[in-house]
Amino acid sequence: MSLQGKTIFMSGGSRGIGLAIAKRAAADGANIAIAAKTAEPHPNLPGTIYTAAAEIEAAGGKALPIVCDIRNDETVQAGIDATVEKFGGIDICINNASAVSMTGTEATSMKRYDLMTQVNTRGTFLLSKLCLPFLKKADNPHILNLAPPLDMSAKWFKNHTAYTMAKFGMSICTLGMSEEFKHLGIAVNSLWPLTSIDTAAVRNVLGGDAIAKISRTTDIISDAAHVILTKNSKEFTGQFVIDEVILREEGVTDFAKYAPNLEGTLAGDFFVPDEVFDSVPTETIRLPGY
Amino acid sequence: MSLQGKTIFMSGGSRGIGLAIAKRAAADGANIAIAAKTAEPHPNLPGTIYTAAAEIEAAGGKALPIVCDIRNDETVQAGIDATVEKFGGIDICINNASAVSMTGTEATSMKRYDLMTQVNTRGTFLLSKLCLPFLKKADNPHILNLAPPLDMSAKWFKNHTAYTMAKFGMSICTLGMSEEFKHLGIAVNSLWPLTSIDTAAVRNVLGGDAIAKISRTTDIISDAAHVILTKNSKEFTGQFVIDEVILREEGVTDFAKYAPNLEGTLAGDFFVPDEVFDSVPTETIRLPGY
Repeated sequence: MSLQGKTIFMSGGSRGIGLAIAKRAAADGANIAIAAKTAEPHPNLPGTIYTAAAEIEAAGGKALPIVCDIRNDETVQAGIDATVEKFGGIDICINNASAVSMTGTEATSMKRYDLMTQVNTRGTFLLSKLCLPFLKKADNPHILNLAPPLDMSAKWFKNHTAYTMAKFGMSICTLGMSEEFKHLGIAVNSLWPLTSIDTAAVRNVLGGDAIAKISRTTDIISDAAHVILTKNSKEFTGQFVIDEVILREEGVTDFAKYAPNLEGTLAGDFFVPDEVFDSVPTETIRLPGY
Repeated sequence: MSLQGKTIFMSGGSRGIGLAIAKRAAADGANIAIAAKTAEPHPNLPGTIYTAAAEIEAAGGKALPIVCDIRNDETVQAGIDATVEKFGGIDICINNASAVSMTGTEATSMKRYDLMTQVNTRGTFLLSKLCLPFLKKADNPHILNLAPPLDMSAKWFKNHTAYTMAKFGMSICTLGMSEEFKHLGIAVNSLWPLTSIDTAAVRNVLGGDAIAKISRTTDIISDAAHVILTKNSKEFTGQFVIDEVILREEGVTDFAKYAPNLEGTLAGDFFVPDEVFDSVPTETIRLPGY
């Protein structure tokens, strides 16, 4: 199964994990609408919706860059309308955009709280809701949320309740909507990496170059997303997928290729339950505060 | 232990469960600030912050009615300042205000989504955050969220993901903040009823008179809240309390008094896990859609 001719509506995607997923789909010949806010280059981050679109086209897909603030319902609706106008429908909705602030309750300003809640949880609810009329008409429709498993352990919350709550909200959308949309044949799944992934977010915000060196490349996430999105949507839904786990199920055994410049032991990602780490042969370390 | 002289800041509380909790505390001689939006009587619902204040004073407490939209940070801060000005501090924060719409993803307008999210989850985060500087200085400080246990079963989400997500957000605040504030000696707990409670919300919105007849009175919730709030905050935190369960632990055996006009079998409440129902002798029925 291939994503040839499928139309994907993705939030974020100017760079990092979102762009990698888009390019992997583009290699199959998919159409991808990148709905993100970066029209002008960020001073510290490479990539805009236009450079992303060029990379998608170069990879073999068709691209529609859409300037869109996911917090603004009208710009999201306009982006969906433009996508349907250009590509004739929407087969796949990918909720990739995310805002993060690893701050405690007192240190989290309500402005920052609102940004995380509105981009992560509300954005996922909104995009899924507005894509729904088109997903209903699609063949093998999927919603994919870049979100962690629902491990309700206080350790994931205590140092940054606001962020975890906003991120787990995306996971809760997977839980609720997968049941709600089952009778429509629309799959709703989550995908989360086992390890840290080398992106600008990790380099600039979360961990710096030191963490990047013990991270995998975005290829592992885009390969895992491709596996999910090519599964039968009537059969594969409500799953909280971990990248390495699903790739092993598909027969992948070479994971060294996903960390070609590894120096040290891979960093395990946030929110991954201990039993998942225990279930794979890959060695990982927990970073301080995880 | 008594709530004599304690100062409570409560969201909502013009009627129903919040008012009952306030009056039970008032009977001990507590000070209660009722921060709610109802200054003028609602056409279908009895009670304003002023009638609530009069009932609190009649019950033996001191009351401060505060006109406050919990979605507006400035009015909440002003309400907290007024409470501290009048009573000298805040010992207890009760997150009681809640908005509900039992609608599926497509039928939930973003306006309704925002109302539920902003009142329930964001309101709980905001009040807890803004009360924190005063709770830090209090003796035996408590945050109490009127919120369900975190039973992450898809059945609670599939018919109303937006509402459950907004309500469980209150529970997630309990989970995260209880760990975060443990070293400060501030308790953060949740309280939820085993059965339907006879309030205006149940009569007018959720179930009508038929459900009210198989509901308990608000006395069971206010007795349970009193038990929680008089516990040692350093020892009793991070608990997801069910009213009947904690009252049985305290030695209460007469539960008939909480349903003096019962006609039929009590209705089990939303979000209560099966094992909790199984753990008590009380017979309950599940209503359709629960």
